[in-house]
Amino acid sequence: MTSIYLLTDFGNDDYYVGAMKGVIRSICPSANILTISNGVRKFNVKHGAFLLWQAIKWIEEGSIVLGVVDPGVGTARDPIIIRANSFTFVGPDNGLFWPAIEELGDYEVYKIDLISTGLYKRRTGTFDGRDVFAPIAAYIACGKSLDELGFPKRSIEIIDLWKVDIKEGYLRGEVMNVDRFGNIVTNIKWDALRAERARIKVKNVIAQGYMAKNYSGKGVLMLKGSTGLLEISLARGSAANYFEADIGDPISLEVIK
Amino acid sequence: MTSIYLLTDFGNDDYYVGAMKGVIRSICPSANILTISNGVRKFNVKHGAFLLWQAIKWIEEGSIVLGVVDPGVGTARDPIIIRANSFTFVGPDNGLFWPAIEELGDYEVYKIDLISTGLYKRRTGTFDGRDVFAPIAAYIACGKSLDELGFPKRSIEIIDLWKVDIKEGYLRGEVMNVDRFGNIVTNIKWDALRAERARIKVKNVIAQGYMAKNYSGKGVLMLKGSTGLLEISLARGSAANYFEADIGDPISLEVIK
Amino acid sequence: MTSIYLLTDFGNDDYYVGAMKGVIRSICPSANILTISNGVRKFNVKHGAFLLWQAIKWIEEGSIVLGVVDPGVGTARDPIIIRANSFTFVGPDNGLFWPAIEELGDYEVYKIDLISTGLYKRRTGTFDGRDVFAPIAAYIACGKSLDELGFPKRSIEIIDLWKVDIKEGYLRGEVMNVDRFGNIVTNIKWDALRAERARIKVKNVIAQGYMAKNYSGKGVLMLKGSTGLLEISLARGSAANYFEADIGDPISLEVIK
Repeated sequence: MTSIYLLTDFGNDDYYVGAMKGVIRSICPSANILTISNGVRKFNVKHGAFLLWQAIKWIEEGSIVLGVVDPGVGTARDPIIIRANSFTFVGPDNGLFWPAIEELGDYEVYKIDLISTGLYKRRTGTFDGRDVFAPIAAYIACGKSLDELGFPKRSIEIIDLWKVDIKEGYLRGEVMNVDRFGNIVTNIKWDALRAERARIKVKNVIAQGYMAKNYSGKGVLMLKGSTGLLEISLARGSAANYFEADIGDPISLEVIK
Repeated sequence: MTSIYLLTDFGNDDYYVGAMKGVIRSICPSANILTISNGVRKFNVKHGAFLLWQAIKWIEEGSIVLGVVDPGVGTARDPIIIRANSFTFVGPDNGLFWPAIEELGDYEVYKIDLISTGLYKRRTGTFDGRDVFAPIAAYIACGKSLDELGFPKRSIEIIDLWKVDIKEGYLRGEVMNVDRFGNIVTNIKWDALRAERARIKVKNVIAQGYMAKNYSGKGVLMLKGSTGLLEISLARGSAANYFEADIGDPISLEVIK
Repeated sequence: MTSIYLLTDFGNDDYYVGAMKGVIRSICPSANILTISNGVRKFNVKHGAFLLWQAIKWIEEGSIVLGVVDPGVGTARDPIIIRANSFTFVGPDNGLFWPAIEELGDYEVYKIDLISTGLYKRRTGTFDGRDVFAPIAAYIACGKSLDELGFPKRSIEIIDLWKVDIKEGYLRGEVMNVDRFGNIVTNIKWDALRAERARIKVKNVIAQGYMAKNYSGKGVLMLKGSTGLLEISLARGSAANYFEADIGDPISLEVIK
């Protein structure tokens, strides 16, 4: 029972995710379908890439990730399959998988062959998640080799999540996620921060933060988040609301000695 | 492992869906429970019927659809089972299943026998999804025949999704869904539109739309959506916000030559 | 195939739930993962406890409940396992499981042994759901005994959901949930209300309610909800909006003769 993990910006209210599950089970009834998130910000490939990077360390070996955050559906971007270690990724070639792949190490890329697989017949042009990617994920879950489904491709699109500016006493990065608790998850590695206190700035809001080991302190907290990144949290409140912070915002920290 | 697909207006936050899953697994542990959507607009049977019509073409043969959009729970509407082709539908007799059934062709309807099944003992009157429909779906998934669960019924309630007014150069229909991307999904078949440009009106907002093959164009787009219907889309924006459109609104198009 | 039912305040948009599922399947691939709700109000242990109390009567025997509503993560509260009848509960010792346990009768409590299980090595301090509770639930699903995972503990934290004030002609309780339909679910047992009419007060809004058997009546309805509690409903509308009611609000009823 291979697991297929969904990662999409489709939400859970429309028929889109149900249709993809139905297509998978029509082709490979034994596949086990799970979800990382269908709540990726719409059209935000970088947000999807970040959620996948967070999740990939925790999903079981041998799994398939069916990732569909695909603002370019119907345009020239390639449909691809990537194998990295024991994991397989199926989706559009737009950088969505790159941060996870980079973490896993060696990888091979295949461009999906729409002709030989016959999938060109299913393709409507507006929903490759259902027409192309779900069938491919199902074929792989039920044992088809990547050579039967596509042909090797040299390069892939990448997204670099780790653009930060780190100097003595100053760090500048980006808000990668704002979670349901209002925690601000940054792209700054925790180990880069070596300070008990810092002046934190997100857009136009500035506040002093204190290093903490968990969410139980007082005021604005600087924490090592669950994936090793610097997180800004407000004890029992929402740091995101406090800083009016959203995904993509720049965030900077000035160490206070 | 028969699949039971849920379609409800219960949302995912309350205990309702969890209780239905528990009831199913108590009766038929081998059933595979999946979800089309629990995000049907509350009490909106037509919206549920439309989502099901969209999904039914994609879910695997032999599946059971457990549909609970049931504003009339506790009143006189019948609890029913419908078999159409290899699919089985379980839920209230209020038209929810009709558009999907109509698409599938021949069908048989059974009224659930609350007495002989003993389900009258479970019934609280406010949650037939848990007390009646989930058990019936589970019994069917584990092999009971429809004759054991109910008796033939002649007629069912129908909902006609396809009321449109189409003349030379003019089309008028209804907004059937507004998806997470802000796409306006109409009940007008794509093939009915034969124009490169049209003046689109939703309630009081009017704008010119251009035919497009995917979501990558500019301005207001007229597209063939993933289920063959006319969709109105705003490139990288929300057509629903732009037109202040919501489910049930009338939409008209005047062809520009 | 033991079922593991999730109950969290993580929402479905972040990577948290996906990571927990991945950890479970890495340890116990045969576990069947289901969800009661990931929509518990954030940090609201009482709300989680109430949803679990509602659900527990309906999930199949032998199931494991993985409950993570854990504002005290990283602090001194114990990680625990509770066995009650055939059910097993895994999560923080903060009262989350108490109302369900109390309903089930006899129970045994174990404190998870982080040393002997080796889980102290995984622990980051900000995500015990992934680092401690998911692995424990998976070990139990795949057959480990509680003695291998922890040691008996005498007492547990409790949450009393049933604090009500009931006099002749007067009832006072608390809003336990506001569901997607705007129904106000109270902690007052239905049988305590013996009146056709009552003056209902939630915070500062007062209205007259009428006893009803289902949601199809007119005006403000007093109903026996699906778990035997008094529910206030507004026919085809939202009682919660009408009364501006939210979880935790006091609610009182004065019987009208």
